[in-house]
Formats: sequence, C-alpha cells, structure tokens
Amino acid sequence: MSSHIDIDPTLVDHSIAELAQYGAHGSTGVWRTVYSPEWAAAQDQYGAWCEAAGLHVRRDAVGNVWGRLDGSAGGKAIVSGSHIDSQRPGGQFDGALGAIAGLIAIRTLREQFGVPKRPLEAVALCEEEGSRFPAANFWGSRAIVGAIAQGEAETLRGYEGETIADAMRSVGLDPARIHEVVRDDIDTFIELHIEQGPILEQAGLPVGIVHAITGLRHYVVELRGRANHAGAFPMDLRRDPMAGAAEIIAGVIDTAASLGRPAVSTVGRMLVEPNFPAIVPEKVSFTVDARHPDPAILSELYGQHEALFQAVAVRRNLEVAWNITLDHPPCLADRETVRLLEAVAQEQGVPAMTMHSGAGHDSQVMSKVAKIAMIFVQSKDGRSHTPAEFTAVDHAVAGIQVLAAALYRLAY
Amino acid sequence: MSSHIDIDPTLVDHSIAELAQYGAHGSTGVWRTVYSPEWAAAQDQYGAWCEAAGLHVRRDAVGNVWGRLDGSAGGKAIVSGSHIDSQRPGGQFDGALGAIAGLIAIRTLREQFGVPKRPLEAVALCEEEGSRFPAANFWGSRAIVGAIAQGEAETLRGYEGETIADAMRSVGLDPARIHEVVRDDIDTFIELHIEQGPILEQAGLPVGIVHAITGLRHYVVELRGRANHAGAFPMDLRRDPMAGAAEIIAGVIDTAASLGRPAVSTVGRMLVEPNFPAIVPEKVSFTVDARHPDPAILSELYGQHEALFQAVAVRRNLEVAWNITLDHPPCLADRETVRLLEAVAQEQGVPAMTMHSGAGHDSQVMSKVAKIAMIFVQSKDGRSHTPAEFTAVDHAVAGIQVLAAALYRLAY
Repeated sequence: MSSHIDIDPTLVDHSIAELAQYGAHGSTGVWRTVYSPEWAAAQDQYGAWCEAAGLHVRRDAVGNVWGRLDGSAGGKAIVSGSHIDSQRPGGQFDGALGAIAGLIAIRTLREQFGVPKRPLEAVALCEEEGSRFPAANFWGSRAIVGAIAQGEAETLRGYEGETIADAMRSVGLDPARIHEVVRDDIDTFIELHIEQGPILEQAGLPVGIVHAITGLRHYVVELRGRANHAGAFPMDLRRDPMAGAAEIIAGVIDTAASLGRPAVSTVGRMLVEPNFPAIVPEKVSFTVDARHPDPAILSELYGQHEALFQAVAVRRNLEVAWNITLDHPPCLADRETVRLLEAVAQEQGVPAMTMHSGAGHDSQVMSKVAKIAMIFVQSKDGRSHTPAEFTAVDHAVAGIQVLAAALYRLAY
Repeated sequence: MSSHIDIDPTLVDHSIAELAQYGAHGSTGVWRTVYSPEWAAAQDQYGAWCEAAGLHVRRDAVGNVWGRLDGSAGGKAIVSGSHIDSQRPGGQFDGALGAIAGLIAIRTLREQFGVPKRPLEAVALCEEEGSRFPAANFWGSRAIVGAIAQGEAETLRGYEGETIADAMRSVGLDPARIHEVVRDDIDTFIELHIEQGPILEQAGLPVGIVHAITGLRHYVVELRGRANHAGAFPMDLRRDPMAGAAEIIAGVIDTAASLGRPAVSTVGRMLVEPNFPAIVPEKVSFTVDARHPDPAILSELYGQHEALFQAVAVRRNLEVAWNITLDHPPCLADRETVRLLEAVAQEQGVPAMTMHSGAGHDSQVMSKVAKIAMIFVQSKDGRSHTPAEFTAVDHAVAGIQVLAAALYRLAY
C-alpha cells in the first residue's frame, strides 16, 4: 500500500506556463523545434529545475537532460520523462507535460520520503516530433537505446536542408559522441503524456493507463491515368486517377470504421497533377495512415487496404504504386508495470481506465532497453499538435500523482 | 450544289508549322500567351499572310487581326477564324488551326472563284485560353460583341499580377479604345477547331459538325471538419472532410457516368489543409466541372451534384459551402448553318458526323452578334492542351474544305 502522495497543483501549473515561454507562439502555442535557441533555453531551464529539486543534472551528447536522485541500494534506474520539442506550432502540453511530470514526481517523493533505495531519474528528451528533421524518428530515445547509426547525424537533413549534426553543433553538442548516450542501466521507463484523443474526456476520467502503443504504417499511394480535357473526353473513355483515389479513400476510411475501435485509417495528404479544374488529372498521390495495437488485426487492415489499392486500379485501368514510408509494429507495455499503475491509481483514488495509445511515443523506443508503461491525462476535445491543445491542471496533477505513487513503489 | 474545292495540303502543313515557331516549346509545343512578344510576332505573321492572300488587313484595338475580302454586293460579313494564344505550354493546333483555316479557305476561294458577293473575313482572335489572365474569359471575342466592361482592362490581372491593360500597352495597344472593337456587321461566324476529344477518331471520321456547345459550371466545394490526430482520434468521433470529399467525388463522377454521354463531371483540382499524413484534415476544397449541352439535363446534373454536396456534409457533420466560379449556358449553333455544313460535307465527299462540343469556344461568345457554327477536325488520342496534341494534315484539309464550301455557299 502506497502512502497518499500530494502533488502541488500550483507547481504543476507554473511549470507548464514557464516552460511554454520558451518558443511561445501566440497566447497558448509553442514553436520549439529541436536544437533551436528556444529549445536550448528550455532544456537549460529544465536542468535548473532539476538542480533546485536536489537532483544531479547531466546533459548527454544529443542534448537529453537528466536529473538523477541516487538510490541507497543502487541498481538500475527507474526513469520518467518525455520530449521537450514541439510541433510548429504545437501546444504547451505535448511532451513538455511528461518531462515536467517526471521531475515533479521525483521532487515530491524526495521531499516527502527522502532518499530512495533505487535510483530515480527525470528526463527531458531532446526530440520526438520530427517537426524540424522529419526522419529524426525519436532522436532522443533512439540515442539512448543505441539505434542511431554511425554517421547518420551527418546525412539526416531538416526541412531547410541543414544536417542534424550541424544543428547539434550550433547548440554546443558533438555528434561524434552520440554513441556515449547509450544506457543499459534503465530498469523501467514510465512516460506521462497527454492523450491527444477524446476517449478519457468522453469517459469522464482524468487518467488512462496505457497497455499498448499502436502499430502503424504510412503508405504513399500513387495513381496514374491520362490527363484529358474535362469537356471533350467522355466519362466512359477516361482513365481518371481522381475517380480511383476517391473510391480508394472512401473504401479505406470505411474499412477502418467497419472494423471498429481502435482501428483507424486516415488520408491526411493528397497531391493532384496538374491540379486544374478543367483537366482530368494525370496523377493523384495520397497518404494512408493505418493503425491498430493488435498485430493480427493490423495485418488484416493492411491487407484490406492493399487489396483495395490494387482492385480499384485494375478496374479503372490506372497504374498504381505504393511505398511504405513508416512501419512501426505495435509495442506492448510491460504487464507488471501496467498492473502496478492500475493498482496505485486505485489506491490514490484517481479514476482511471486502461487503454491503448493510438499515437507513437518515445516509450516504444525505450522498450528496447527497459520495461515501459505510459500514463495518459485527459486532453480537452481530444486536441493536440495545435496551440488549442489543453489539459486541465487537475488532470495533470492526477496523472502525476499516479506516476509518483508508481515510482515510489518501484524505488522506495 | 457547290463546286469541288481543292485545299492545298502543303500550304496547310507549312502554315501550321510556321505559326508554331512563334513561342515554340520543345519540338511540338507552343507557349504563346496573349500580348507576349511571341504572340505579337505570330499576329504579325498572320497579318502578313492575309496581305499576301490579297485581303485587307486590320488589327483592332484588342489585337484581333482581320483579313477582309470585300464583296461586290456588300452586306454583313461572313467570318471564320479562331484564337491565336495557347496554353502554357499547349500544342500547335488548338486555336491556331482555326485561324489558319479561315485564311486558307478565303484565300482558296478568291483564287478559285474571284470576288464574292458578300464580304468574307478571316480572323485571328487575340485570346481564348485564359492561360495568362485567368478571368479574360474570351477577351478577343468579348471585345467584338461589346462584352468587356469599361475599365475592366485596368483591373483584370494575370498570374504574375500585371493588368491586362498594361500587357496591351506593352504591344502597342490602347485599352481606352477597346469599345471600338465592337462589330454589328457580322452575319455568320464559322469556327474550325480541333475536337480535343476522342469521338471522331473512334468513329473513324475526319470532321464533325457542331450543333451545340456544352453548358458548364465550375463549382469550388469547401468541406470543413475538425483536424485531429490520426492515431488518437477514433473513426466514429471524427469530422473528417477527406472522408466527405472522397464520397462526394466518387458520387459526382458516378452520376455523370450513369447519365451517359455526353454528360461529363470532373474533379481536377483539390487542396487539403493542413495536408500532413498523420493529421485528419481540417479542410478539403475541390472543384467540380460539370457539363452537358442540353439545358434540361444540365440542370438535372447540377441538381444531383448540389444535393450530394449537401447530403454528405449533413450525414458526416461537416460544414459545406460551394461557389460557382464559372457558369455558361449551353449555346446552340444556328440550325441553318449546321444544315449547310452537313450538306456541303456530303457534296465535297468529306465523311462527317454532327456532334456537340464539350469544350467552350469563342463561337459561343460570337453567337451574341452572329449566327454561329463550328467544324471539328479529328484529334489524335483526343488530346489537347499539351504539346502532344496532334491533328493529321489530311483531317485539317478535310475540315478546311468543308469550311470553304460553306463560305462559298454563303458569300458567292
């Protein structure tokens, strides 16, 4: 049985607001891409807070900032945190709240219970959003698990053409030392994050315990037909890739909807050539983002989508090709850690449900070297990746309370 | 009964090739927008050819070039021609062939039969494609029928931001004199044009007689929903404008296909916001181009499309709005002139069918002041608005032969 843990709402509220000043965008937005001056200032602030909380501060070679509370019995560390970078613009909560949560949980435990048996660490990971370097692909956590290839930093480029190595050097980091970031001494990584969906709000619950992170694929589907005059070419002779795209998109969305929750398929991006009102298009390309946390159903979803791409193209006499630009298998959280989170939520009197994550997170990368689990807190209207994202301080506090109670059980 | 008329294939072939040198783009393309230096040079060449053919040449205030053969009995003129400007790039035939056809037909008649009773005129109209000034909307023929508003030239802007008035001045034309272009002395306007579709080729015929020009509308349909995370937001709670757009587009295309020829509906342009793979779009807008030459069926087509826009939006909880950015009623050709063309085609031994035009043409504007009809010549693979458009010289000659025979019957 854990003790009741008191998280200071004012501290939570102020920490969110203060961190959001670094890269503030409008009244509620944040524009803080990795290795920008505002990112560096935010990481410095995080380090200063860790120090003020009595933690040993370390900035690693990719710029992750760690605050460590040594344990009397040593052993592998229990770690909590999330990423510090944002969308362009994003909000104040995505990532940042998880970094703050880890720090406040450990600070509170130290103040209330003193030195733990096992080491506790809070971490502000350098990068997760891919908002400056689209292929960074969890740069901060990849460095920790040793999944950044030698020389990768010198070839990986941002939207402006700069390499991530140059961006690192611009904030005083040495890309040649990335291999030093690797950790093999992490026992458990628990990440608190905003839900980014409407499930908790609809359930009227502040907190979710994440048992699995979705698997997902991004397809880029390209359909080619024949550009023709919109007036002079009869419908029955056309090879119209827009007609094929519309049929595929409607079908893909219907397939996921028919499978039911938690299957999701999204077409978020589409490009048409030549894109003139009076010309039957020559080429239409679009993305399909398909997700499910269950490997078997996920595979069925992919199969149905690919069969549809092919069938529509054949029937409409179109050329079709697709590339898979992203392919993440589902990631199961550590079962014992999930049970622990469920138990401490109940003990702390925090209403919670167990659910999956439909978004990708650093935790899925960390799962290569550590047991992982996640805590979700309610997102207003399910919004994220926008300055409009919002999480009430009460919900953030409830999540941090569950986090702290779990860290207590693991480390004290 | 007309005499047999001989059109010189070499003259036709050379004229097409020579005119295509002005604004040549690659080996078969033409890039010749209105009021460009290459356009001015092409119009000068046309004027020089008219003069060499023994016609009185006149360049009017918008830059249409006229070649006139006076008639012994006077009266209103019988006119033939088409536009001289191109897409960016277009081919050698769209417009240009019709201007050349009028000139060669009248030149041939003069050489074979001397002075006509009624005046004959060939014309190279300045603009039809809207490829530099998207709202020019048949600038050359609009000037002739008095449909250019006072001051319009000073406000109508091109893709580069320049006014059409400035463009006119750059080639020595005075926009203040546009009103002088108006003609009230045209009896009949017959325009030869490439078909731009595959009907004649599939029927194995060189020539079509156009009895009607399609009516058409351009809709811009805008669907708004709610941008959400592609992973964290369940399908059943989404307000996804891409789902709505796909359903509407598939439905619009299916509606026109089900109505059968000559109904056509095309979605050629689409814009998605924010257009990221992992975000359910906030807004999708797309064009619908719908056409039919029969006013009653056209109205039914519009009605079905608009009902679908509304029904899908309501069912999917999306905001929908549409603007009509182009709205041309069908234009019937003059029945007597169509009969004349049918008759002379038979007399000249030119296989022909009577058909509608699915594209808009200067003739529909000219119909406000004159009897009109059109002659189509076969397009290879139905292509146009591309350097790949092609019409065999035999087919062009057959069309010009029908044109000349009709002009003979009207003017001699």
